[in-house]
Amino acid sequence: MNRYVYLLEEAQGLDRDTLGGKGFGLVEMRRAGLPVPPAFVVTTGACRAYLKEGRPPEGLWEEVEAKVRALEGLTGKAFGRGADGAPPLLVSVRSGAPVSMPGMMDTILNLGLTLEGVEALARATQNPRFAWDTFRRLVQMYGEVVLGVEAQAFEEVLEAAKARRGVPDAGLTAEELEEVAFRYLGLLGERGLDFPMDPWAQLRGAVEAVFRSWNNPRARVYRRIYGIPEDLGTAVVVQAMVFGNLGEDSGTGVGFTRNPATGEKGLYGEYLRNAQGEDVVAGVRTPEPLDRLKDFAPGLYRELEATAELLERHFRDMQDFEFTVERGRLYLLQTRSGKRTAQAAVRIAVEMAEEGLITREEAVLRVDPNALPALLKPAVDPASAPLPLLRGLPASPGAAVGRAVFSNEAAERYASEGLPVILVRPETTPEDITGMYLSQGILTARGGLTSHAAVVARGLGVPAVVGAEGLKVEEDRAWVGEKEIREGDLLTLDGSTGAVYLGEVPLLEGRGAELLERLLSWAEPYRTLGVRANADTPEDARRARAFGAEGIGLCRTEHMFFQEERLPWVRKLLFGSPEEEDEALEHLFRYQKEDFKGILRAMDGLPVTVRLLDAPLHEFLPPGSEAEREANPMLGFRGIRFLLLRPKVFQMQLRALLEAAQELKREGLDPRPEVMLPLVSEPKEVERAKDMAQALFAEYFPIPFGTMIETPRAALLAEKIAPLVDFFSFGTNDLTQMTFGVSRDDAGRFLPRYLEERILFADPTETLDLEGVGRLVRLAAEEGRKSRPGLKLGLCGEHGGEAKSVLFAAEFLDYTSASPYRVLTARLAAAQAGLRKVRA
Amino acid sequence: MNRYVYLLEEAQGLDRDTLGGKGFGLVEMRRAGLPVPPAFVVTTGACRAYLKEGRPPEGLWEEVEAKVRALEGLTGKAFGRGADGAPPLLVSVRSGAPVSMPGMMDTILNLGLTLEGVEALARATQNPRFAWDTFRRLVQMYGEVVLGVEAQAFEEVLEAAKARRGVPDAGLTAEELEEVAFRYLGLLGERGLDFPMDPWAQLRGAVEAVFRSWNNPRARVYRRIYGIPEDLGTAVVVQAMVFGNLGEDSGTGVGFTRNPATGEKGLYGEYLRNAQGEDVVAGVRTPEPLDRLKDFAPGLYRELEATAELLERHFRDMQDFEFTVERGRLYLLQTRSGKRTAQAAVRIAVEMAEEGLITREEAVLRVDPNALPALLKPAVDPASAPLPLLRGLPASPGAAVGRAVFSNEAAERYASEGLPVILVRPETTPEDITGMYLSQGILTARGGLTSHAAVVARGLGVPAVVGAEGLKVEEDRAWVGEKEIREGDLLTLDGSTGAVYLGEVPLLEGRGAELLERLLSWAEPYRTLGVRANADTPEDARRARAFGAEGIGLCRTEHMFFQEERLPWVRKLLFGSPEEEDEALEHLFRYQKEDFKGILRAMDGLPVTVRLLDAPLHEFLPPGSEAEREANPMLGFRGIRFLLLRPKVFQMQLRALLEAAQELKREGLDPRPEVMLPLVSEPKEVERAKDMAQALFAEYFPIPFGTMIETPRAALLAEKIAPLVDFFSFGTNDLTQMTFGVSRDDAGRFLPRYLEERILFADPTETLDLEGVGRLVRLAAEEGRKSRPGLKLGLCGEHGGEAKSVLFAAEFLDYTSASPYRVLTARLAAAQAGLRKVRA
Repeated sequence: MNRYVYLLEEAQGLDRDTLGGKGFGLVEMRRAGLPVPPAFVVTTGACRAYLKEGRPPEGLWEEVEAKVRALEGLTGKAFGRGADGAPPLLVSVRSGAPVSMPGMMDTILNLGLTLEGVEALARATQNPRFAWDTFRRLVQMYGEVVLGVEAQAFEEVLEAAKARRGVPDAGLTAEELEEVAFRYLGLLGERGLDFPMDPWAQLRGAVEAVFRSWNNPRARVYRRIYGIPEDLGTAVVVQAMVFGNLGEDSGTGVGFTRNPATGEKGLYGEYLRNAQGEDVVAGVRTPEPLDRLKDFAPGLYRELEATAELLERHFRDMQDFEFTVERGRLYLLQTRSGKRTAQAAVRIAVEMAEEGLITREEAVLRVDPNALPALLKPAVDPASAPLPLLRGLPASPGAAVGRAVFSNEAAERYASEGLPVILVRPETTPEDITGMYLSQGILTARGGLTSHAAVVARGLGVPAVVGAEGLKVEEDRAWVGEKEIREGDLLTLDGSTGAVYLGEVPLLEGRGAELLERLLSWAEPYRTLGVRANADTPEDARRARAFGAEGIGLCRTEHMFFQEERLPWVRKLLFGSPEEEDEALEHLFRYQKEDFKGILRAMDGLPVTVRLLDAPLHEFLPPGSEAEREANPMLGFRGIRFLLLRPKVFQMQLRALLEAAQELKREGLDPRPEVMLPLVSEPKEVERAKDMAQALFAEYFPIPFGTMIETPRAALLAEKIAPLVDFFSFGTNDLTQMTFGVSRDDAGRFLPRYLEERILFADPTETLDLEGVGRLVRLAAEEGRKSRPGLKLGLCGEHGGEAKSVLFAAEFLDYTSASPYRVLTARLAAAQAGLRKVRA
Repeated sequence: MNRYVYLLEEAQGLDRDTLGGKGFGLVEMRRAGLPVPPAFVVTTGACRAYLKEGRPPEGLWEEVEAKVRALEGLTGKAFGRGADGAPPLLVSVRSGAPVSMPGMMDTILNLGLTLEGVEALARATQNPRFAWDTFRRLVQMYGEVVLGVEAQAFEEVLEAAKARRGVPDAGLTAEELEEVAFRYLGLLGERGLDFPMDPWAQLRGAVEAVFRSWNNPRARVYRRIYGIPEDLGTAVVVQAMVFGNLGEDSGTGVGFTRNPATGEKGLYGEYLRNAQGEDVVAGVRTPEPLDRLKDFAPGLYRELEATAELLERHFRDMQDFEFTVERGRLYLLQTRSGKRTAQAAVRIAVEMAEEGLITREEAVLRVDPNALPALLKPAVDPASAPLPLLRGLPASPGAAVGRAVFSNEAAERYASEGLPVILVRPETTPEDITGMYLSQGILTARGGLTSHAAVVARGLGVPAVVGAEGLKVEEDRAWVGEKEIREGDLLTLDGSTGAVYLGEVPLLEGRGAELLERLLSWAEPYRTLGVRANADTPEDARRARAFGAEGIGLCRTEHMFFQEERLPWVRKLLFGSPEEEDEALEHLFRYQKEDFKGILRAMDGLPVTVRLLDAPLHEFLPPGSEAEREANPMLGFRGIRFLLLRPKVFQMQLRALLEAAQELKREGLDPRPEVMLPLVSEPKEVERAKDMAQALFAEYFPIPFGTMIETPRAALLAEKIAPLVDFFSFGTNDLTQMTFGVSRDDAGRFLPRYLEERILFADPTETLDLEGVGRLVRLAAEEGRKSRPGLKLGLCGEHGGEAKSVLFAAEFLDYTSASPYRVLTARLAAAQAGLRKVRA
């Protein structure tokens, strides 16, 4: 016969899948010697059997009864019955699936109490008010959770009682609470429902209700969405009640072993005197900081400090624990690893390693690389933040305060007076680049996380909030509903959270760089994947190098074309007469050569991969010529298509690069340029471009010649393309857009809803889609290396600085390339990948 | 020792790769008993050896000399020397690669003639004028082709001589021609070049020149572009000269064994009296139709008729042959399979089969399925066509004459008076649909072969020319350069050729339907691939069924939304308030139900696959709201994305379909609707849509539920999607656009140049790209069938009616779906595929 029920002391060695998360935590706490009220766990196996057969498995109730008897023994109380002046044994019944799962039955407290028991409890505690309140709570919870009565019905009864007296709950007398309890019972009777006055019946009802709640519609939807197996089942924890509401020397609280916001070591949390757990949740009274216990209960505080120490030592991580104090005595009811901010995560990991609690390797693995960019940036102080005016997508981390401007001109005007500005636009285009450079923050009404505004802002390291629904931007003002924002109005935005505030909100400066450096120094030895940066200017290149970039993986020459003084020449080049074209080429050649020299100098001795011109042509159109716009510029006349049909542009760019390198070599430097083709979809394109390049290589010197793989077709034909080049660089931005058939600029209309409704689990423009896009990348890498052994492989989309994507890249690529502020993320993620490989 | 040279009579059994196309044809003609002047072939092997070693292979000249001696024996003449009063043996030297290849040396005639030989020739022919003309021609050809002197230099000398006399060539006297010849020799001398006065040296020079011409830059480029192996080499044909310019009983001509324009059986061709072959090419005199020989040379005509008969019997195909008549005696110089129009191809194939010349199976394989749509359409009569005003892309076959209109209103005005119209637009949008319906022809300035205009025109069966460069369309007029086209002006356009004419040009009515039906009746038994049609209206459905469609593979419901009276409701649905939405849904439900009833009725008993709404939203935007336009509507909020977030639209459409089927069932009909999801890129999308569909299936009855595979990601995740559906339909239009990263609407800016420069060999929006898109289709088909055995697979892009793509589809799909006029193409192509499979 299967065994389904275990006392905590019997359950050592059973796993989380059998005991559920809550049960497992209790067993471990008990094992660590912490004060845990006696309890037993009904395993997930019992639940599975129940759901399969439609009834409890044979022998379950006998086992449960035996364990209740054991609890009686351990507590010296009798279940549901007062005996010998002792209060009755009451229990809490909680669900506890192996995975945390909303939608299931949560908790019934005080179970086992009957009318008879109330009397005994009142007698034993000498507190009839407490006894009736306890009963009243049980009837309500049981009615709601087991019998399915709407909470509203109970609330109305309680509200009416309070209204009669004009007091809060705690103000009701024993008699009044008794009346409420009886009204509750009546309310159930009216519905033909029966509150069992037998403690055993209550227990059976509650356990079965937990079992059944596994199949609540909300729980099912949740499992389907999150891919949680249907057949896990939930465990049930039955635990002897302790009471935090037995007076001023009782209470309930939540503790963290370290500060979850800053990571600072030391007890942190909240406490509510004379209350049961659910009173904290109900928010009727405001809890006080745990610190306060130092004054009125220093012994308890010391005990909690010792508990925190013990929990960390046992679980080897920062813990978030729940406790109750019954008449001065501490009981622990739950523990789990605590959620924390990015800053706290780094600090906790580093300090725990230095305290010897965990190894340095563990510390390296504990920090989410994606959280790093935010660490270096100022943030809105949550303590003093008002309600946001509106919310958009957190496109570029960091917070900024500045004056709203709606044009380049206004940005220049304010900047020349030394005033910080926030550029507010419907969406940005290359036209806005001056304003973006001058801004402390960027706010757009449209666009997704990889829209022009988002990409440029991240490149510049400027905080940005994009796609702020509800924001209407006009020429010289903006509206949020009825609220007008005029030029010069102060705005605060937080690009890490997406919040936008009216006025100036205090900011916290970015901290943690030093701890982060320490963490990275531990991580680096495990990293095998190269990390380069996407950078288009010498400043970006220097910044990236400072963050540890080992080269430039993507230098986008079109970004150089966008600079305001060059735009007229670019337009002449693209749309002018042949004479104008030649004149423009001469000018742009000189600009580009200087650009390249600057970048190559900043990256002296490291590779710099220059991608030849690739911008949808419409981005260069003079204002007012929108009619010439392409229907789908993403899929239009750009990249290699343009370069092959306008060979002079190709030659000008490559010559500028080669000449820049030549001049630096003469200075004794070690420039390492590489040239890369954009938007290839056909091997012949590469062949033709290579012919042109080789003519120039013959004139100067050869440099590595490669191609982006950013159309699905290029990936599918990698085997034919590879022999023509020295390297592939996977442009996962475009590759994602084309593989999904989703334009990053238009995704805002449905992608947020897709994520909300879990049609997609992650934004594929942010986290590389492994099943689709990743499959193409892997296929191209394999087939490319097959036909060209030694082919160098890199990744240079926005994904190049996203942790999960870097993990994927580390499996088989040579390097990843990230925007400068994401270089740290890439380094840590790549190190984690290496570390995991070493461990496996 | 290798053997490199063969007389025609020795070469039987050698293949085309060894003998080249010309040599092979001559050997075969000789074998067939036709009068071929004696000749020998220097094999491609000799060329390969020459190019490898940089000099002629050992023994080559000895072999050549021996064969020249054999020619002497066969002709009774001495090479280059008049002997015993006989004229000297002169030869032609021609290149002849296994594959026809421009850029190589073509022909030198009269080779072997020296100053000494001229005298002998003059004596033997009693025609000094002829002798000097022959020599003059040789020096010029040898100078140009072997010595590389520019043609211009010779032309100037000849022109000067003619100018002095004021006569055409034929008017120059023997003395004058002699002077021209010596001036030619002087011209070579001035350049330090030497015309060899030794016939053997001439021959060696010419043969080596042919060898070397294999590596002419133009020939190399051509081979690289067309993927012709570099190491094939060319053969050289050396043939005893016969002279068509020996008087009025001599001449030269080209014959076809059947009329290449109509296919009519019987000799057809042209003849030029008293001329050498190159005179025809030079166009100095106009040849006369072969028919005329009936009058002045009936014997020759009968001989040519017999020759044609023999050629067809031997080669079992219509032949295009060259011949020369020397003093009344016929010689055949070349033959090859003749090019022919679509109409001729069908007629020739069918009639040859009925004559017993070829089998019915061969007849089926001989016709290019892509040519069929043009067969049913009127065409511009080439005999009476003037120069076109401009040319565009031939987007929808057939010719039309009508009055230029620039708006729906004008189209309605003219149509109401019964006047045919040609709609002229910069490009078309759904707004133009009324005008397009009412037009006899459509002309646009922009857009490619799969632009809106092209796709709709083909669907409607209306001739169209799109992307006509040089056409500038304004609101109420258009310009071609300085030429203005005003409303009401008569235009003629030919959608089969892309030509557009001012005024009315006579049209030829479409013919050949009956012969085509016969051909298809022979073909059908071999077809295993199902053929359905893309049709959105009952008329289209009826037309498609008449053409033999076995169902509707793609019914695009958005096309139903475009109808003018519905657009206001559609806009309310999409952009209106919730009340407006509900009202609109009610109206559109009724429209759609009627649409569906009409189509299901027309296709009674056959499957009708209805694709739920899929149109880029901007196509429905009210005029003037362009600002709301998406950046890349192709990749925007459309298809399943829209349907999942606007479930009422989904439900309305599916309910309309189910109710339409229900009502027809009640009438005793057999409707077979299927429902299909557009633009899926994620299995969860299908899952959610399936939930919605099943709720409606429960209310009515279940119907097959499928999805388009038209994003690369859907193809890559086919294994996960397949278990959720009954069928896949490959939407190769969008799949091609996304796989290449090319928008069909914007491709016009580079795709034509790509095709011209052979960066791409075929327009992938027209012919399925097998390497990239095809690979995805095959992968999805295989993986889909693996996870869902019995999964039905179809193809419904524009490619569904293109022969090569259908061939591919026939390998592993269940059906293809083509626009109605392309159903015939699909049927024939599918039958050819089946036939080839049976044969293999």
